[in-house]
Formats: sequence, C-alpha cells, structure tokens
Amino acid sequence: MEDITGILVDLFVLFAAAKAAGELFLRIRQPPIVGEVLVGVLIGPHALGLVGSPDSTLIQLFGGDEEAAKEALTIVFDVIAGLGVIILLFFVGLETRLRDLLEVGRRASLVGVLGIVFPFALGFGLIWVTGRSNIESAFVATAMVATSVGITARVLGDIGAIRTREARIILGAAVVDDILALLLLAVVSGMGEEQFDGLELGLTALAAVAFVVFAALVGTRVIKRYSFHLERLQVRNAPFLVSMIVMLGLSALAGFIGLAAIIGAFLAGMMLAEAEERFDLEKQALPVYEFLVPFFFVVIGTKVQLSAFKDADILAIALGITALAIVGKLVGGGLASAGMTARSAAIVGTGMVPRGEVGLVAASIGSGIGAISGDMFAVVVFMSIATTLVAPPALVWLYRGYRYEAERREEPALPEL
Amino acid sequence: MEDITGILVDLFVLFAAAKAAGELFLRIRQPPIVGEVLVGVLIGPHALGLVGSPDSTLIQLFGGDEEAAKEALTIVFDVIAGLGVIILLFFVGLETRLRDLLEVGRRASLVGVLGIVFPFALGFGLIWVTGRSNIESAFVATAMVATSVGITARVLGDIGAIRTREARIILGAAVVDDILALLLLAVVSGMGEEQFDGLELGLTALAAVAFVVFAALVGTRVIKRYSFHLERLQVRNAPFLVSMIVMLGLSALAGFIGLAAIIGAFLAGMMLAEAEERFDLEKQALPVYEFLVPFFFVVIGTKVQLSAFKDADILAIALGITALAIVGKLVGGGLASAGMTARSAAIVGTGMVPRGEVGLVAASIGSGIGAISGDMFAVVVFMSIATTLVAPPALVWLYRGYRYEAERREEPALPEL
Repeated sequence: MEDITGILVDLFVLFAAAKAAGELFLRIRQPPIVGEVLVGVLIGPHALGLVGSPDSTLIQLFGGDEEAAKEALTIVFDVIAGLGVIILLFFVGLETRLRDLLEVGRRASLVGVLGIVFPFALGFGLIWVTGRSNIESAFVATAMVATSVGITARVLGDIGAIRTREARIILGAAVVDDILALLLLAVVSGMGEEQFDGLELGLTALAAVAFVVFAALVGTRVIKRYSFHLERLQVRNAPFLVSMIVMLGLSALAGFIGLAAIIGAFLAGMMLAEAEERFDLEKQALPVYEFLVPFFFVVIGTKVQLSAFKDADILAIALGITALAIVGKLVGGGLASAGMTARSAAIVGTGMVPRGEVGLVAASIGSGIGAISGDMFAVVVFMSIATTLVAPPALVWLYRGYRYEAERREEPALPEL
Repeated sequence: MEDITGILVDLFVLFAAAKAAGELFLRIRQPPIVGEVLVGVLIGPHALGLVGSPDSTLIQLFGGDEEAAKEALTIVFDVIAGLGVIILLFFVGLETRLRDLLEVGRRASLVGVLGIVFPFALGFGLIWVTGRSNIESAFVATAMVATSVGITARVLGDIGAIRTREARIILGAAVVDDILALLLLAVVSGMGEEQFDGLELGLTALAAVAFVVFAALVGTRVIKRYSFHLERLQVRNAPFLVSMIVMLGLSALAGFIGLAAIIGAFLAGMMLAEAEERFDLEKQALPVYEFLVPFFFVVIGTKVQLSAFKDADILAIALGITALAIVGKLVGGGLASAGMTARSAAIVGTGMVPRGEVGLVAASIGSGIGAISGDMFAVVVFMSIATTLVAPPALVWLYRGYRYEAERREEPALPEL
C-alpha cells in the first residue's frame, strides 16, 4: 500500500468544503450543487490551490516527476467523482420506470435530436467564423450537444419534481441525446485522426443501440422475474451488493463499447427499479449516494481555469458559446415541445442546458488527440460550468408552484385542460 | 475529466470477484474475507492479471510512460482500498464505547507492548542471522509488530463477537500497538536516513499521544454534549454527513502527524459512538461500508507477488518469518493474558496475528527509502498475507460455542464460575 495521506487530506477538504457550501447555499435558498461547484472553483488548483497539488511523498512515487504525480492525483479525483456520477445516475434510473419513459419516448427523442442539431450548428458557426479549423470547430460544437443530466436530475430530485412529466422527458431525452452525442464525438474524433473508419463507427452505433434496447427490454424483465432469487444468497445485504455489481458492470460495459459510463449506470438503475420495492434499494443506496455524489460536483469545480480569460477575445468567445449553448437547447427543446404549455417547454429546454462532465469529456478527448487548442479547451470548460451553474436556479424558478398544479390536474374530478 | 473506463472495468472486476468469493467462502463455512483476499491474489497482476494493467488511454495520459500509468492505477486502487479500511475502522470505533475500552485498558496496553517486543526480537534475530544488515533486519522486524486490526475486527463482526471482552482487549491493544509500531517505524526510518533527529521523533511521539488522549477524552464529551445541534442543519442527513467529514478529517490528521490513518478513523468512530443511538449512524454507514470495504481486502490480495518464492531460500525465510510473527503475538498475548482462561488468552493472541496493511505500509516505506531489498519486501508481503489468512479461521474456531457461554454467564441466576 502506498502512503496516501496527502490524497486523503485533499479528499477531506473536497468533501467538507462541498458539504459546507451546500449548507450555505441551502440557507440562501439556492440549489446546494451550485455551492458545491463554486466551492470547487475556489479551493481548486487554479484559485486557492487547497487541493490538487501532489505532496512530496506522491511525487517520490513517480521518481520525482511532479507532472506525473499531478496527473495521478487528477485521475484519483476523477475516479472518485466518476463513482459519484455513476451512483447519481443509478439513483435516477432507480426512480425511472420503463413504462413511464416509453410513455414520453417520442417526445423525448424529438427533444434529444433537436437539442443536438441546434447547439451543434450554432457552435460550429461561431468558432468557424473566428477563423479556426473545421475540426476544432466541430470539437467545440460537439462538446455543446450532450446534456449532463446529472445536474438536472439532482435539482429535480432536490425539489421533488423527479416524477413530473417534464422530468421524464428530460431524462429520456438525455439518454437519446447522450447516445447521439457520443456517436457524434466518435465521428468527430474519427475525422481528427489519420484514418476514418466508417465500418467501425457503424458497429459502435449498432452496439450502442443494442445495449440500450437489451438493458431496457430484456434487463428489466429478467430483474422483475428472477430477482427474488437474490434472497437465497448468504452474503449480508445481497440484493444491495448485487445492485452495486450490476451498476459497476453496466457502467464499465457502456464505457467499453464507447458510450458514457453514466448511461450504463442509468440503465442499471432502471432495470433494478423493477426490484426496488421488494428490496428497498433506494434507501440502501442513499448513504453511498450522499458520500460519493458531492465529490462529482466539487471536482467539476476544481477544473475551472480562470486565468485563460484574461484574454478578452477568449472571454468573448466563451460568453458567445455559452449563450449559444443555452439558446440552442431552449430552441431545440421549445420546438420539440409543441403542444405543451410554455412553462413545460421552458422546463424541458432548461433541463437540457447543463453540459457538466459530458462537455468536459469531449474537450479532454479533443485535446488528447491534439484537435483542439488550450484556448478552446478553456472555452469548452467555461461553457460546461456556466451552463451547469445557470440551469439549476432557472429550473427552481420555473418549477415554483408547479407541484400544486400537477396534483390538481391529476384529480379525476377536474377535466383535462 | 479523464477517460476512466479502463479503471472502471478493473473496479467492477475487483468488486464482483470479491463478493462472489465471499459468497463461495460463506457456503464452505469460511470467513468471507479469506475468499476476498485469495481472489485478489488470483485476479491480481502477479497471477491472472485481470486487474492492474493500465489500458492505452491511461498510458497516453502519462505520455506513453507505462510504469507511471501502472503506478497511478496502483494509487487509485490504494485510495479506494484506503477509504475502505477507513470506513471499516470507523465502524469498529462506532461499536466501541470509551468506557468499555478503559475497562480493559491496562490489559490491552500489556498485550500491545508484549505483542510488539516478541515479534520484533524474533524477526530481527532471524533476518540478522541470514547475514543481512542491521537496518534491513530492523525494517522486516518492524513490519512484524503492528496488528492489522481490520481483519480481526471484520471476523469478530461477522461472528457477532465484537462486544466480547476479548474483542475489546484486542481492539484496545491494537490502538496501543499501532501507535508504538508507528513510532518504531519512525525510529527505524530515522536510522535508515542520513540524519537522525531525536527531537523530531520526540515531537511525533508527543503529538501522537496528545491526539489519542484528546480524541478519546475531549472528543467523546463534545460529541455527547453538542451533537444534538446537528439536527439544525438543513443538508439532508446532516448527522451522517458530518460523521463522514469527521471520519475523513481525523484520518487525514492522523496521517498528517505520522500515525496510520486508520487510527484517526477508529477514534472518529469512537467519538461518534456517543451520538450513535440518537442518529442511527451505524445503520446509515453500513451501505458505505459494504460498498467500500471489500475493495480493501481484494486489493491486499492483488499485492501478492508469487514468483519471488521460486528461490527456496527466500521461501524458507518467508515461512520462518511468518511462523515467528505468529508465535511472537501468541506468546506476547499469552503472557499478557495471565489470569484469563486459556481460550481467552488464545483468542487475544490470535486476534493480534494479522499484519495486513500495516506490515505492507512498513515494507513500502522501507523499500521507498532503499532500506530493504526486493527479496525482503516479498518476504514481508508474504508474512502480512499469510498471517492475515491464518488468523480468521483460527478465530472462528476458537470462538465456537463462545457466545452461548457468554450469554449464560450474563444470566444473573447462574453463579459466576
């Protein structure tokens, strides 16, 4: 075992700061995740630097290579944050019944598709106009398409709106959206590399669709029919532990076939929702959720590199991209919501706004293969964070008084308006 | 966010294998942790290699440096295993009331001290006789002194014996034992370095004692008197989350002042035991325990390097050191248990046998400063694993029928025998 004291100190600071900021934001009536992300910006290596600097012990493990030690520390944070977002999406899945999702399937697909077309077109246009290459423009635009449903899901959960129709459309659209966005990312990455392999891309697409359909249709039925066998296992709390195994397994499988791991976690949760009542999985998973999820949000915050925006041009591009990222989703969601009330359309559009970790993944892949510059990387990070910070208060505002209406509408005595 | 798919696959394999092996071992009536450690040996990089090999994405993050990527992967596993052993010791602390511990304090101190003197003397002698240097002999001997109470605590928990008098002596002795062992490690490390600073060593010792006394005496009272304020916080499940903050904080603090992090976790648990009933902390911490603790045991298993033992001399030394490590604790525990029944003395001695992670920490520090060779490192790892594997079945065997006796003895109608 390596000496991990330094890392442990950082984890303590991250967790304590996240929870303290969450408490503070609750007291000023703001969503706690905004506090968690902002405190991450504050304590991160690009501001106060309370976390993210490897200590001498860690540097020594890499033979004195400070850069490698720093990268290792980043990976540790990303793995713990990754486990956090996995359990978060698992939890969202647990609260999603397949039949509810299918009910809004057509609408969700439309929201997903239009919510990709508009931001991509707008983002590509803006970056291309500033004189950057096609491939760099395409990467920034790709980072703008995928919704980070984690943020929205947490806000919806916090305000008790997770079971509303809009929430189901958002979650369903995010699934469609993520799959399409990651296919797009695969295409753009393929364009950025030496050879473009259409066959491989087609196979990835096929695997992705097969995975989702299999998990959603076969998985849910298997769990529904056979999960009672879990009671026969001798390991303590076997159903909960098997759920965690399925969650990790499907997340890893999703990553393995080129999708975001969180899609697998969401599908695992949706499958196990069929056994939720029998085993009280939600209650059992809650402490793991509460221990790990804050790391995701605070770590997102630590990624913000404020200094890149001393350059006025970069700042202007960042603001422009952020505005287009918001407008793109609102227009896409709005057009797809024809026939719903204006408020519902606004909720759906706003719910799709946060880019969070999905934008960051796209940015890091782009910078990893050398397709986007440091400046554009900073812009994408800014857009991911800004859209993430903007959406929660807007959602809370849009949902004001909503629950009462929803309840009243469900009363059979009142006619459907 | 880095692409952590490869790491996620490894974490899934580790967790699923640990739980499957645990289930199997329960079915053949063995303690599940033995299965968890052995399956770690099996799937680890030194046997099947199903985990622990960085994928190309991870290697790319270190600019193609495979060794650095491997080290980073090791650190990720060690951090998650480290969180596992921290929550494990926190849990043990939660089940330990200070008054119970003080009740067995004198006996526990004696067990702790004698359980250090005997293994150290025996181990130093054996390595020194094979012609190795004083400092190398001292390092191997130091790795033999500290009990890894985690293993014992889990076994005691599994068989429902955690509240027996022997268990309290073992846990108390392990605290004494860890503090003394880590001071010893500080001395030996000091000897191995260029300059020996007696003052610094004295300060470490003082800080250690102050930390334990402060946490045990002041901490428990503060929690007892003021913990009801936690109910005023607005964050959901605030008492549980504050417990996690205290646990991480004291673990980091313990590491910071040169003690093992798990000592801090244990003390945090012991302090919060005073608020356990009010907030039902044990029940809330259980899912986090069940999700993280298996990683500790399976990761320990992956560290075993079987190939070093093709050399017959090394194998002989490893077996000899293991035998002396066991005999040393049994004799030390036995002598310190004068006046108790033979079975109780055997339980106490056996409970002190597992070295687990503490031996491995000592070995890695020794190898880190170049004081011990690769061969002796392998020997220490072998001893740590072997003592860890031997103790649980022995404890289960020694405790057979014990609970029945203990219950009968507590019945007021029966005379004390």
